[in-house]
Amino acid sequence: MIWRRRNVMAAATALLAGGARRAAAQGGPPSLPPAGGAERTPITTLHGRSLPFVMKGGVKEFHLVAGEFTQDFAPGFKVKVWGYNGISPGPTIEAIEGDRVRILVTNKLPEATSVHWHGVLLPSGMDGVSGLSAPRIKPGETYAYEFTLRQHGTQMYHPHGDEMLQIGLGMMGMFVIHPRDPEEGGVDRDFVWMAHAWKIDPGTSRPNPAEMTDFNIWSLNGRIFPATAPMVVRTGQRVRIRVGNLSMVEHPMHLHGHHFELSGTDGGPIPPERRWRMASVQVPVGTTRDIEFVADNPGDWAYHCHKSHHTMNAMSHNFPNLVGVDQGEAADEIGRLVPGYMAMGSTGMAGMESMAGMMPGPRNTIPMMGGAGPYGALGMGGMFTTLKVRDQLAHYDDPGWYHAPPGTTAWRVDHKTA
Amino acid sequence: MIWRRRNVMAAATALLAGGARRAAAQGGPPSLPPAGGAERTPITTLHGRSLPFVMKGGVKEFHLVAGEFTQDFAPGFKVKVWGYNGISPGPTIEAIEGDRVRILVTNKLPEATSVHWHGVLLPSGMDGVSGLSAPRIKPGETYAYEFTLRQHGTQMYHPHGDEMLQIGLGMMGMFVIHPRDPEEGGVDRDFVWMAHAWKIDPGTSRPNPAEMTDFNIWSLNGRIFPATAPMVVRTGQRVRIRVGNLSMVEHPMHLHGHHFELSGTDGGPIPPERRWRMASVQVPVGTTRDIEFVADNPGDWAYHCHKSHHTMNAMSHNFPNLVGVDQGEAADEIGRLVPGYMAMGSTGMAGMESMAGMMPGPRNTIPMMGGAGPYGALGMGGMFTTLKVRDQLAHYDDPGWYHAPPGTTAWRVDHKTA
Amino acid sequence: MIWRRRNVMAAATALLAGGARRAAAQGGPPSLPPAGGAERTPITTLHGRSLPFVMKGGVKEFHLVAGEFTQDFAPGFKVKVWGYNGISPGPTIEAIEGDRVRILVTNKLPEATSVHWHGVLLPSGMDGVSGLSAPRIKPGETYAYEFTLRQHGTQMYHPHGDEMLQIGLGMMGMFVIHPRDPEEGGVDRDFVWMAHAWKIDPGTSRPNPAEMTDFNIWSLNGRIFPATAPMVVRTGQRVRIRVGNLSMVEHPMHLHGHHFELSGTDGGPIPPERRWRMASVQVPVGTTRDIEFVADNPGDWAYHCHKSHHTMNAMSHNFPNLVGVDQGEAADEIGRLVPGYMAMGSTGMAGMESMAGMMPGPRNTIPMMGGAGPYGALGMGGMFTTLKVRDQLAHYDDPGWYHAPPGTTAWRVDHKTA
Repeated sequence: MIWRRRNVMAAATALLAGGARRAAAQGGPPSLPPAGGAERTPITTLHGRSLPFVMKGGVKEFHLVAGEFTQDFAPGFKVKVWGYNGISPGPTIEAIEGDRVRILVTNKLPEATSVHWHGVLLPSGMDGVSGLSAPRIKPGETYAYEFTLRQHGTQMYHPHGDEMLQIGLGMMGMFVIHPRDPEEGGVDRDFVWMAHAWKIDPGTSRPNPAEMTDFNIWSLNGRIFPATAPMVVRTGQRVRIRVGNLSMVEHPMHLHGHHFELSGTDGGPIPPERRWRMASVQVPVGTTRDIEFVADNPGDWAYHCHKSHHTMNAMSHNFPNLVGVDQGEAADEIGRLVPGYMAMGSTGMAGMESMAGMMPGPRNTIPMMGGAGPYGALGMGGMFTTLKVRDQLAHYDDPGWYHAPPGTTAWRVDHKTA
Repeated sequence: MIWRRRNVMAAATALLAGGARRAAAQGGPPSLPPAGGAERTPITTLHGRSLPFVMKGGVKEFHLVAGEFTQDFAPGFKVKVWGYNGISPGPTIEAIEGDRVRILVTNKLPEATSVHWHGVLLPSGMDGVSGLSAPRIKPGETYAYEFTLRQHGTQMYHPHGDEMLQIGLGMMGMFVIHPRDPEEGGVDRDFVWMAHAWKIDPGTSRPNPAEMTDFNIWSLNGRIFPATAPMVVRTGQRVRIRVGNLSMVEHPMHLHGHHFELSGTDGGPIPPERRWRMASVQVPVGTTRDIEFVADNPGDWAYHCHKSHHTMNAMSHNFPNLVGVDQGEAADEIGRLVPGYMAMGSTGMAGMESMAGMMPGPRNTIPMMGGAGPYGALGMGGMFTTLKVRDQLAHYDDPGWYHAPPGTTAWRVDHKTA
Repeated sequence: MIWRRRNVMAAATALLAGGARRAAAQGGPPSLPPAGGAERTPITTLHGRSLPFVMKGGVKEFHLVAGEFTQDFAPGFKVKVWGYNGISPGPTIEAIEGDRVRILVTNKLPEATSVHWHGVLLPSGMDGVSGLSAPRIKPGETYAYEFTLRQHGTQMYHPHGDEMLQIGLGMMGMFVIHPRDPEEGGVDRDFVWMAHAWKIDPGTSRPNPAEMTDFNIWSLNGRIFPATAPMVVRTGQRVRIRVGNLSMVEHPMHLHGHHFELSGTDGGPIPPERRWRMASVQVPVGTTRDIEFVADNPGDWAYHCHKSHHTMNAMSHNFPNLVGVDQGEAADEIGRLVPGYMAMGSTGMAGMESMAGMMPGPRNTIPMMGGAGPYGALGMGGMFTTLKVRDQLAHYDDPGWYHAPPGTTAWRVDHKTA
């Protein structure tokens, strides 16, 4: 189970740095992630993990292996991607300001690659621009990048050379550098997400990296809703969410129920006295954005890209516009001619969520909307997940749906009173 | 007449809160909008209005009715949209920090809907995410949302579920919460605009919500230039413009003749000491942006999205590129084959503005550029209007064109002197 | 040679303002750009130049001539553009806060035009909006715009009317106003770039201004990599880069090896205590963004738009997706049917860089990637150039490739050690 594995990883990762001092200060129950004496809150990479390292003569040595593999973007929807260590985005690299790190990169792809450490201050020869900084890593080769971290913040890694194809196929990862001072910028929960856009024609499994604008699959950490995991936090916790975007499109990430501060970019933290409060943060391409807030509002809160097509899955773009049109048998007729054809509903599209499984759609794709909530269909897809804020939590596994206190849920009223 | 009706609405809206104290302090003429003792400057929603409310046991009760109707985006250009209370964007909800509000929503659409209060801090069950927060509002039903406002700033409302279709067809509105302290953040004029993008094939009247990138109609408050009303202010007034964007595309809104401060987001005001000055403000999707400035420069000033295709109306994208080509009779020939075909001018497109009415174009659309100014054709369309700054104003109706003082207008010079 | 000519221009431009006081204070070698007593660092417009002026009765008189001409975007790739004084973007206008400027504009285009001074505070009649501010400049006419500069910062100029076509074809330029106080905001190197997007079908030379989203050529100052010149600076120098964007697309400009502060917009400088540090800066459409940093990291550093398709040249979008497919003779077969067809490599696209000259592609275009670095092919194109930081510099001509100190370049390791 993804979640359990993640917790194991979190525990392992926690060895990185120290103790549950902060968690303890919050008076949290002892069954919360152990953190084994860690002094820094480890990064939570839902659907992913942090990259392990070994110490070699004072250097933290990591190992990335670039390769091709199949990843489940959602149950029944398999995509052939390029990534690192079997996942796309690749594992999160976590280190501490001041660390000397060595990152081995083995290329198991059919073409040459390189790794650029986006936003990391390092020597020119370690910068990973193919041909400019160093030779490319040919298939089968392993290269070593080594540098001392003299900053902290939210960086990324990705190839630099033939990027349209390699990044387009999924080669990317987050690189989080914790501050030297464990007191600085501390939070109780620290999530990373990479937002990506793909063009995967229904019925196929291989993204088309030549696509520049007309994407149809929108993922968070390589999953699409309803297969995305929720962020689970306890009421009162200070939360950071770090988002990286290496797609071709800006993603305005919107959080419900809370305002937050924009607290960092790929150039590091924004000093508190310069920050702006927002409810949505635009994440431009080729950047990271950190946000911070206190989760003071219990409930199930949507967290999603606010471009309405980005919370849809495939099959949403090539519909003829039939709103207001009685389609009669036309849809069936067209369907015989055009494989995978589904007509947009004549009364709107809200009926689409329940179609999955009821009609033979194209193989290996996913309905454009999905997800069942406590009150029925959600009608969302793609870059959508939830923040679940609970007063009581025994662990960070999905606690199920929120039970709103009586009188705090929208209610149906007798029409005459309206 | 739109403007007169707006003023009546403004007067009514002013009852919301108090007096013309601020206007009086500015020494304005008594014929300026009465404001009937209001202490807060009411919002001006050009082409729209603020939503009335009734007090019921200490609660401000508003009523939104979602439905389908036809709206004139410009004279002769009718569009079948979905909106609230007969307009798209729907009426602006105005309330005051600390208010308890109840908003009834009646669904007269053919499919279920919900209303999410974007950026408003409220209980989870009132958040309006279909299926997650509460059941959807089925056709014919009325739901009540009720919450206490514990913030101020510029928020929005829109459906949350089947958003691609429902927002795409026009379901959206602004939700402005005034500060509890009437002294805080006060301005003399306070405008709201919603920027939206539509795909309406020439000759049709129903927007295509499946379109993701190739839009062709760009509106401000549901109107397109030259049918957009100007913002009229008196020299020296402090002005706020609040813009919401729920389209699929970023809109960089540019104001001529003034610099302004970015003063707020959907997370509320930015403290004055953190603001940046700008001449254009990017309004990302799914956010709001407030700007503030003193209108210290008399004149007629363009205010528009700076993407050059967004100040065009329909019919601008499918032209063959004939710049520099003598088209002879080819255009007529092609026109016989392709309904609605217009060739791009061989010397450019500036001749297009005067074509309206001179040639039989497709029905129910609008030339791609239009608007006649004091010095001839403007060559603009779409997301374009003006800020009219005047030293003397008897009212806020359109004062006509600006008469520039002698010597302050660009002049034609004898070529030999050049 | 472009570089030499630029230096002559820089010297000429330096007469604008004074002395090499600042350069001297840095202890730079005497062979650095003379600056002839200039007190302000002149703007460096790579591939372009600053517009000369003559003093007439206390007024700085400039002269722009709008026209059509052919420009080499790269060797062998000629594009028919519209611009000013024979270049697109047009010459950079440099002036000083407090200056009275008169700008003559002669129209040698086949259609009427105007010039709007984006972000410049001036009288309404000088604002250059066709039809609104003043009459349009008809072909053959010359107009004068005159105003006093009461601000400083990074502005732009461009037509306002039929903008989709005129800006789309290249009519734009930067307008830099230096502070009155030469001590304010001083830097040692001050670069301007205009980022633009074009649709130029392979084999043609005329951009298609009707294109709204599917661009295929991405330029910096009218050049595309590998034909873009590097920015050359000495270690320790304070550097400003000003970028203007009048294309249809946001460009996130990323600098390697350094963090920078976002120091200005089209509304002028951002006060130091309000700035954010970044490694990439989003440059929205219709705005300018200034960044500042100390070049403290010697090396060859990529500087580029981070949208991966924007560092590609033409021919990248219409490929069938053949990754993982053995194409055998199919590509040749298709090539006979589709002129200019190139199949995407079955192992990726990295082999594409070396194809230039090896196969008969369409005439008048450029391979989608190119550029040879010290370690082989770069695999980049379009909006890409470098910042070259050197401890020792005799002049600002391209110093060639960086020689990294031993032990600071990524190295190939024996696979068994990995």
